[in-house]
Amino acid sequence: MINFNFENYTKLIFGKDKELTVGQEVKKFSNKILMHYGGGSIKNSGLYEKIVASLKEANVEFIELSGVKPNPRLSLVREGIELVRENKIDFILAVGGGSVIDSAKAISLGANYDGDVWDLFEKGKNFEGSCVPLGVVLTIPAAGSETSGGTVITNEDGGYKRSTGHRTMRPQFAIMNPELTYTLPDYQTACGACDMFAHILERYFTNVENVGLTDRLCEGAMKNIIENAKKVLENGNDYAARAEIMLSGTIAHNDSLSMGRIGDWASHDIEHELSGIYDIAHGAGLAIIFPAWMKYVYKHDINRFAQFANRVFDVEIDLKDLEGTALKGIEALKNFFKEIGLPVTLEDANISDDRLEEMAEKRTENGTVGNFVKLNKEDVLNIYKIAIK
Amino acid sequence: MINFNFENYTKLIFGKDKELTVGQEVKKFSNKILMHYGGGSIKNSGLYEKIVASLKEANVEFIELSGVKPNPRLSLVREGIELVRENKIDFILAVGGGSVIDSAKAISLGANYDGDVWDLFEKGKNFEGSCVPLGVVLTIPAAGSETSGGTVITNEDGGYKRSTGHRTMRPQFAIMNPELTYTLPDYQTACGACDMFAHILERYFTNVENVGLTDRLCEGAMKNIIENAKKVLENGNDYAARAEIMLSGTIAHNDSLSMGRIGDWASHDIEHELSGIYDIAHGAGLAIIFPAWMKYVYKHDINRFAQFANRVFDVEIDLKDLEGTALKGIEALKNFFKEIGLPVTLEDANISDDRLEEMAEKRTENGTVGNFVKLNKEDVLNIYKIAIK
Repeated sequence: MINFNFENYTKLIFGKDKELTVGQEVKKFSNKILMHYGGGSIKNSGLYEKIVASLKEANVEFIELSGVKPNPRLSLVREGIELVRENKIDFILAVGGGSVIDSAKAISLGANYDGDVWDLFEKGKNFEGSCVPLGVVLTIPAAGSETSGGTVITNEDGGYKRSTGHRTMRPQFAIMNPELTYTLPDYQTACGACDMFAHILERYFTNVENVGLTDRLCEGAMKNIIENAKKVLENGNDYAARAEIMLSGTIAHNDSLSMGRIGDWASHDIEHELSGIYDIAHGAGLAIIFPAWMKYVYKHDINRFAQFANRVFDVEIDLKDLEGTALKGIEALKNFFKEIGLPVTLEDANISDDRLEEMAEKRTENGTVGNFVKLNKEDVLNIYKIAIK
Repeated sequence: MINFNFENYTKLIFGKDKELTVGQEVKKFSNKILMHYGGGSIKNSGLYEKIVASLKEANVEFIELSGVKPNPRLSLVREGIELVRENKIDFILAVGGGSVIDSAKAISLGANYDGDVWDLFEKGKNFEGSCVPLGVVLTIPAAGSETSGGTVITNEDGGYKRSTGHRTMRPQFAIMNPELTYTLPDYQTACGACDMFAHILERYFTNVENVGLTDRLCEGAMKNIIENAKKVLENGNDYAARAEIMLSGTIAHNDSLSMGRIGDWASHDIEHELSGIYDIAHGAGLAIIFPAWMKYVYKHDINRFAQFANRVFDVEIDLKDLEGTALKGIEALKNFFKEIGLPVTLEDANISDDRLEEMAEKRTENGTVGNFVKLNKEDVLNIYKIAIK
């Protein structure tokens, strides 16, 4: 275990009808806010009206900025920053999933920064100011952005998808009602399950030794996602399973599972090129990239991959063939992704192999990616090639 | 899973030499503090001098109150409250284990309350003010008090050991260097391991259904304590194992493992009578009481006890004899406690059966204890009797 600091101040407000408390939660921070959301879905579901009623009841004034799309765009972030500045807004409420929350976080960071917000991507941690405080009503369990201190934004100028973070970027509260996720399409539910699973995998594959507690916590959380992802796809109105998945998305990415570890994050980086260019859902991209990454790197630590196979997928450890045990775990993961309806190859997602070289080049132009194994352009290209079919 | 709120703002500062940063951490809150600790051990180990040097370097003025004993006393808390008030102190630094931290928390609560602090025990949550902020340098991994929002104090007048909590009672930071635990006597190390294990057990045995994620997290954390408690007792200077145990004590009691659950807490209540009267270490008392409680209540939910046996102690599930599986788990737990050198009966701890009736009476004078099974005086007495030998 390496030395670490851990701090996560986000208050979780979890359960049925909790969105009705949003007005009183916001009121603790502000009387005038920016309400940020996507588009029609929260209006169709009736959530929009509930939020508005709760804000009005608490006498909270709000300005709206809608239009956030999956893989949220820098241009909308810039628009939000202008709105916050012009209207002297001191709190942002994000109503939606990871894209909406990430967009809100980028606004909250940029609004208090003198220069252009894109400057801060990949170097935002050095920003000495504070983000505008924000709160969340979560509608999609996936990204874990509701308690994380990071954001991922796509710059349309060049298709760059880049991340940044700040210690003051974690939301002040996250309201999480599993019932709000009943209406999610199956594909989006599955993408979400893959995204949270991948957040744990990124933390799990580490070179840091003696991380037994967080290993066990990671393994338990992964087992539980496997069990409940299948249940919610069988019955979208299964409150218990929806609750398990929603809470898992938070635990996967609130940094408690990475205490004292160094995560990998190559698969996320490699996937970002895919979804930056092809606009595939991030979770679907991860279902393609992660198994390919695993096949490429597993020899670096066969024991860890065998442990993964055994403890997460109940693969019996074959001491005479640990490599076989490890490979069975990778195959089991791939099968799980398939079983919940995700693509596991570029072919499955109708992505051609035309631009693999370009993506590998762009991804590594600032250096290698990943920590478990440091990958250069050729490595990244090889992983894309493994992912073809 | 039931509706819940979760908030834990304590910043963990974990690793080698981290106690040297205490001055700069305190300085963020205050220039004049109360430093609260036990007695000789932090002076013998050299920790006291390091803390003093760090505070002085940061120009933090401090007043000292030492003398905290295991099962911390109300009289010293009252003394601390006077000191804080007289000296207009606005931050308390606890250097020690759970007893010191609990004593500091009681001072931090009472200093801002107009009446006598004992009024607030068992009804402190209704206190509308705020606690004086506090920070911790942890020296004993056990109670989990370094990030919890509760405290347990013994009133010498009558031997009442009672708890209270407050939403502002969590420490602002907890500095945790596993090296500081190298010098703990084996018995204290074992008591600590039992205490943290019991904190998980109290959360694990619940009537709330569909708590799969937190079940898995609890089970993983328990498995890891079993593994590492043995290692630290074999080699007290094993940094990796000491780190696992230290972090486990925090995770066990930071409330993340009880999200959406209702814990039991009868065993803690029943044990508090023991250590309130006999001054036995809390962890040792729990090693006696918990297996007895389990034997008394397991029929209430044999499946849960069988799951515990299987997932925590690798007992194979016998579908034709789930009760046998459940009982093997209880036996395995008892053996684990024995193996690390703890008493598992009142006889082992040289406690006679003279006052069992009195203890059962006192414990239940305000009503039943426990949630998994609600226990009246007769039940509590039966559990004490099971614990005799």
